[in-house]
Amino acid sequence: MSQQQRDALDQLLRDAPLDLGGDVAEQRVIFEEMMAAIPVPADVTTSSGSLGGISVVNVEAVGADHAKVIVYLHGGAYAIGTAASSVGLASDLARRAGARLVTIDYRLAPEHPHPAAIDDAVAAYRGLLDSGVAASAIAIAGESAGAGLAAATLVSLKHAGLPQPGAAVLMSPWADLTLSGESISGRAAVDPALTPEGLARRALDYVADGDPAGELVSPIFADLTGLPPLLIQAGSHEILLDDATRLAARAAVSDVAVSLEVTPGVPHVFQGFAAMLDEGDAALTSAGEFLRSHLAGAPP
Amino acid sequence: MSQQQRDALDQLLRDAPLDLGGDVAEQRVIFEEMMAAIPVPADVTTSSGSLGGISVVNVEAVGADHAKVIVYLHGGAYAIGTAASSVGLASDLARRAGARLVTIDYRLAPEHPHPAAIDDAVAAYRGLLDSGVAASAIAIAGESAGAGLAAATLVSLKHAGLPQPGAAVLMSPWADLTLSGESISGRAAVDPALTPEGLARRALDYVADGDPAGELVSPIFADLTGLPPLLIQAGSHEILLDDATRLAARAAVSDVAVSLEVTPGVPHVFQGFAAMLDEGDAALTSAGEFLRSHLAGAPP
Repeated sequence: MSQQQRDALDQLLRDAPLDLGGDVAEQRVIFEEMMAAIPVPADVTTSSGSLGGISVVNVEAVGADHAKVIVYLHGGAYAIGTAASSVGLASDLARRAGARLVTIDYRLAPEHPHPAAIDDAVAAYRGLLDSGVAASAIAIAGESAGAGLAAATLVSLKHAGLPQPGAAVLMSPWADLTLSGESISGRAAVDPALTPEGLARRALDYVADGDPAGELVSPIFADLTGLPPLLIQAGSHEILLDDATRLAARAAVSDVAVSLEVTPGVPHVFQGFAAMLDEGDAALTSAGEFLRSHLAGAPP
Repeated sequence: MSQQQRDALDQLLRDAPLDLGGDVAEQRVIFEEMMAAIPVPADVTTSSGSLGGISVVNVEAVGADHAKVIVYLHGGAYAIGTAASSVGLASDLARRAGARLVTIDYRLAPEHPHPAAIDDAVAAYRGLLDSGVAASAIAIAGESAGAGLAAATLVSLKHAGLPQPGAAVLMSPWADLTLSGESISGRAAVDPALTPEGLARRALDYVADGDPAGELVSPIFADLTGLPPLLIQAGSHEILLDDATRLAARAAVSDVAVSLEVTPGVPHVFQGFAAMLDEGDAALTSAGEFLRSHLAGAPP
């Protein structure tokens, strides 16, 4: 794990044109261009599809066990990003997990505030169940807002009386839209990617006239009882660090099997930079092993 | 992982004669008898010794890499327990880590309050360095008070200008002698082994006229910057659950590589019951893999 790699990524992010709190239309274009820079490996096949009425991109790497499926929820502060732009990171996770993956175009704010995104995630999951896939063969994974959305979706599945998936992987979850974590200010100086102001703007868009502390908006406040095994990963150089540690603590006291992995000196969703950062590679490998061990049919 | 196993262990602990807050002389005898019930495997050799002037028990399993050493700190609320009584659990960890182990007879309260235990742990560690073992080939591990002591020892090593070991494993750490965690009361009903009153009594013995919130007494309040990779494990059925989650959060914000693993429905130091509890077995295996990957000389 090299300090040089970490420094290079930090500078790259500080120089990046993305402003998460900026004009949505402009930032969506910039985000797509940034994410398109993450290469989709040659052994990965993608196809557009639909699941439970929701547009998705199907992702399958050579050698994946078709019976195991990761439902993937992309990042972008609930306002930015697409299923297609998530394929680089999502396929990297899917390959290491030995599973196929479906990444979802859930509706975005401000056009579609909460609970549109959760409704879409639940609809896609229900569509997967209806297609004959066992819940125990499904994992939900996501990054940033997508990871917070993943946690909220699990709570929503419980409310809906649907079976929980076999596991979930939450990379740098945004799980508190009230921005009450100490790290929101405490880590601002070392976070090269996110700003409190940017998150605050996007939280307003997503929450609209709802309650920012509602359990489906900010799952750190939810009763997490009954959720499947969770792997939560974060970098120590992100203002959302406390979202990860508090979500883990909340899961623990809810009698959920939870693993938290914090990697020092790396930013928000550092797994997306695995090609240039050993820590990203190691975290994705760990997430893949976690999914292999928790999805039905995997060897013990 | 069977509910039957968890129920059996819960009942065993509720029926056990140990009263951690009871008379020290009596409880020491009872604790020794309980710990002696954990079998020492046939492939493990033990011998008494001394390290930096501290009495220790050397533990070595067949096939261990002699170059790698785990320094082990037993549990018992700083007042109870011995190196000898820790050999069952410690040897189980050492075998899975492929390392030899030295378990330390640090001085106990109330006869020897803080900082006697830390002084002894540091002296033994220094003795190991002086014997020619590289810091990167050493891990510190402990359970309960021994895990809190391990964290405090790492902070103390930093203050002393000594090199940090390669890693540390903290099983159910008691890391807050002010007992300020919500789980102290919130988990009391489900904890079959520990009581708030018992811990409060032993905290008085150990802290004596010191500050219970001092960083070497309660490392959740310490600056943990510079510590090596930590694996923290806890059960969700223990009143010390918040000590584990808060220590992990503190390590994270101190830019320490930290993994937290919380196993639902199991008690304090459930790893000691690996022979009857699948979750204990799985946690020890995970701890062994963590140590293999972090001690110098291990394959990548």
